[in-house]
Amino acid sequence: VDYRTSLGFVGLILKYLAAAPLFPTAVALYYGESPVPFLVTSGVMFGLGVALGRLRTGPELGNREAFLLVGLTWLVVPLVGMLPYLIAGNGTVAHPVNALFESMSGFTTTGSTVLSQISFERHPRSILMWRQLTQWIGGMGILVLMIAILPELSVGGAQIMSEEAPGVSIDKLTPRIQNTARTLWKIYIGFTVAAAGALYALNFLGLADMSFYNAVAHALTTLPTGGFSPEARSIEPFSPAVQWTIIAFMIVAGTNFALFWYAFSGRPEKLLRNVEFRSYLSAMVVVSGVLAVLLFTGLGLAEVPDAIPPLPGDVERSVRQAVFQVVSIVTTTGYASMDFNTWDQSTQLILLTAMFLGGSAGSAAGSVKIIRWYTIRKTMARELFTSVHPEAVRPVTFSEEMVDEETVRSVLVFTILFLTIFAFSSILIYLDSLRIGLDISAIEAVSASIATLGNVGPGVGVVGPMNNFLRFSAATKLYMIFLMWLGRLEILSVLVLFTPSYWRR
Amino acid sequence: VDYRTSLGFVGLILKYLAAAPLFPTAVALYYGESPVPFLVTSGVMFGLGVALGRLRTGPELGNREAFLLVGLTWLVVPLVGMLPYLIAGNGTVAHPVNALFESMSGFTTTGSTVLSQISFERHPRSILMWRQLTQWIGGMGILVLMIAILPELSVGGAQIMSEEAPGVSIDKLTPRIQNTARTLWKIYIGFTVAAAGALYALNFLGLADMSFYNAVAHALTTLPTGGFSPEARSIEPFSPAVQWTIIAFMIVAGTNFALFWYAFSGRPEKLLRNVEFRSYLSAMVVVSGVLAVLLFTGLGLAEVPDAIPPLPGDVERSVRQAVFQVVSIVTTTGYASMDFNTWDQSTQLILLTAMFLGGSAGSAAGSVKIIRWYTIRKTMARELFTSVHPEAVRPVTFSEEMVDEETVRSVLVFTILFLTIFAFSSILIYLDSLRIGLDISAIEAVSASIATLGNVGPGVGVVGPMNNFLRFSAATKLYMIFLMWLGRLEILSVLVLFTPSYWRR
Ligand SMILES: [K+]
Ligand SMILES: [K+]
Repeated sequence: VDYRTSLGFVGLILKYLAAAPLFPTAVALYYGESPVPFLVTSGVMFGLGVALGRLRTGPELGNREAFLLVGLTWLVVPLVGMLPYLIAGNGTVAHPVNALFESMSGFTTTGSTVLSQISFERHPRSILMWRQLTQWIGGMGILVLMIAILPELSVGGAQIMSEEAPGVSIDKLTPRIQNTARTLWKIYIGFTVAAAGALYALNFLGLADMSFYNAVAHALTTLPTGGFSPEARSIEPFSPAVQWTIIAFMIVAGTNFALFWYAFSGRPEKLLRNVEFRSYLSAMVVVSGVLAVLLFTGLGLAEVPDAIPPLPGDVERSVRQAVFQVVSIVTTTGYASMDFNTWDQSTQLILLTAMFLGGSAGSAAGSVKIIRWYTIRKTMARELFTSVHPEAVRPVTFSEEMVDEETVRSVLVFTILFLTIFAFSSILIYLDSLRIGLDISAIEAVSASIATLGNVGPGVGVVGPMNNFLRFSAATKLYMIFLMWLGRLEILSVLVLFTPSYWRR
Repeated sequence: VDYRTSLGFVGLILKYLAAAPLFPTAVALYYGESPVPFLVTSGVMFGLGVALGRLRTGPELGNREAFLLVGLTWLVVPLVGMLPYLIAGNGTVAHPVNALFESMSGFTTTGSTVLSQISFERHPRSILMWRQLTQWIGGMGILVLMIAILPELSVGGAQIMSEEAPGVSIDKLTPRIQNTARTLWKIYIGFTVAAAGALYALNFLGLADMSFYNAVAHALTTLPTGGFSPEARSIEPFSPAVQWTIIAFMIVAGTNFALFWYAFSGRPEKLLRNVEFRSYLSAMVVVSGVLAVLLFTGLGLAEVPDAIPPLPGDVERSVRQAVFQVVSIVTTTGYASMDFNTWDQSTQLILLTAMFLGGSAGSAAGSVKIIRWYTIRKTMARELFTSVHPEAVRPVTFSEEMVDEETVRSVLVFTILFLTIFAFSSILIYLDSLRIGLDISAIEAVSASIATLGNVGPGVGVVGPMNNFLRFSAATKLYMIFLMWLGRLEILSVLVLFTPSYWRR
């Protein structure tokens, strides 16, 4: 492995990233806060970038070097990206483990937080904006990783992208990764601007009371399915119009971005007829429907004093709360428009189960992802068919396109691996919590495991959307940092680095 | 589907089974108990057998008819087999749902019980012997199903049997299913007699105080990895020598029976070099080792008044308790030599995790089974290798024999399906328990789910080895009856019956 070239490319990425802290610098200057944390970070990024860039031995990046590049990028960037938290030194996030947790949670677009108190009294506006920005940057990286890099490396069935939407393969979209990246980023930036604009425009219609700061901050974490918010109670304080707008953009954020390219090129049917897009929408409609009924009838609410005004009997509120939470969970965004810890166990378990779905493959959404479940369902049906018709040869198909068997197998292996790591992590988190005397239920531990491995963000109970991950031991937090990294890079591309055959010449 | 022929074969099986109740009849007469429950059951079996046998339209059993036969057999036999409990009318098992639960748990060799009080005061010795016998009969059926029928139908990777031990395929073992069955049963009966003889012989060496009744009763539920016991506290009351003897026979019971055929034909290396057998032994050695250390040091015990004499510091006792519980769980037998509810949460979670392993494929053991996990590990390694070497074509191999890709995929599909059904069932069991106000933890619900779907028997906590499944609602018990049936028949062979293409001509 030519690790020098991999490090060289990490350096190149850092050099570009050195521009990112300039945005919170401007925010700091506007609000009269200290710009030092960001200027230092920018300097470190650039300096380290130049130093690493020197290591590069050639212009070419081989297959193996790409794996190392991906793994290292999502380690080095969060490590440098935690500097503002450390330098600003406010609150819980001034502790190195917490700072790294928050930074990794940002760049992996997870959205789990260790801030005990989210408020402008406790943290400068510029720091909270940097926190939002880390997710937006992470989302950009993930899109390129998902659509341009992983399918090339054919890891964990990422190549399904090209199979399921015939024609949506890298070389067909645009001839080179750089061009693909540029196209995707244009769409991504366009949607981010649209989201910020839409949220802010609601003010002028009298439908919202949202500052420009908040409009930008939430646009920055909606498109990457991130879920961080500078508001302590997430999206709860905002008006119904704001919540519906965010729902719409979360749905966009969880859609395969390659399909938008077609839609904007005058071929919307490529999007509308896509099996992944349809399964994704159907899943959200079905789960939201069930939840809306449970909330409207009051069956899905715990018998504790509920939010005011109450949900039961209010159609708009019940539907909105159901849809918001379901879309937020399925797209693995992690925002909340109410504290679903006030819901019944059954309703919470529905949300917990939905965390395993995940959005579309070509988006920044995490978890298993809808297309893998769709592949599993198709493969199972084929398995049952060939049991009855052993003589039949029948490929797995997506809207009449054949999926090759290697891809099917990759999807199956990924899913088993994901579920196994999830289960082991749940047990580890649970036992370590018992060890430090943290009063946590098994379900809460399970939710913390999927929330981090699946890059969802919040879980239920003590790690619910209005709570945080601060209580866990440093060991568990470091382990969760590993889980976020592992899940974000689709597991297999990380595991590859730990095989002997990878390092052998 | 020629369902008449399937029913006809079920009739044939019932006619043979009509002989089974004659054994508890003899027990009843010996102890001066009523033989009526067994004579009636025998009569019903024979009558129903003759009636169904008339439906048969031909001597041939097709592929589809075989699926129906398998599914129906494990429904009809438990339904008829519950009659003795109903007719005897003693205790909790006199209720129809409980009687069916106990009967299904018997014939599927699960070993979960709904008897609230297991004692000769409450239940005739003949009834408790019938309960043991149902497991022994179930085990016979499972062996034939696993080694002779499922691999022919190639369901869920059952064909792995032939792959992993080159030459151990049906047609090579003996030319016809009847002959295979006869060979297997000879081995099975031989080991059962040996187990009963060994257990009883310990009396004469002064190493045990075990009645002939108990020796036979436990031999009948060891070989089928059943786990029922006429003793309320399972194997706890017996001497260390008895416990070690049962450990040995549990290990035998969880081994691929086809390999014994080779071993007894003068080719023991076929057994000793077999990858499945080696993985199976290694898994038990590793888990037992960890557990023994935890028990010996006292780290793995809860801080409650412990059993007397205490485990910590006693090497033989610690090792024996660790090995017994691990072997019992991995082979999915479900006996207990002590109440592991007195163990620490961490130690219990190790056992709970081990429930997913399962014994060897060609045995009566349930759950996922070692060979599937081995296949998954191999497939994952191959996946990682081909990610780095995309040009390489590399088959999955078991001791240098190639495993065909179709089998690999079947194994993967089965495992995902098993884990998914397990997860959903855990949630259902948990929610229904909350509904009826049963104070159950999520971990207990999870353990009840894997205990029934994996045909393990006991779980942890309220469904622990010295407890029972009586507290659950009738709805949950019926659902668990379904789970035992589904798990026992390797899931896919049941699901096939619910596909439209199965019923279409
Ligand atoms: K998220
Ligand atoms: K069992």
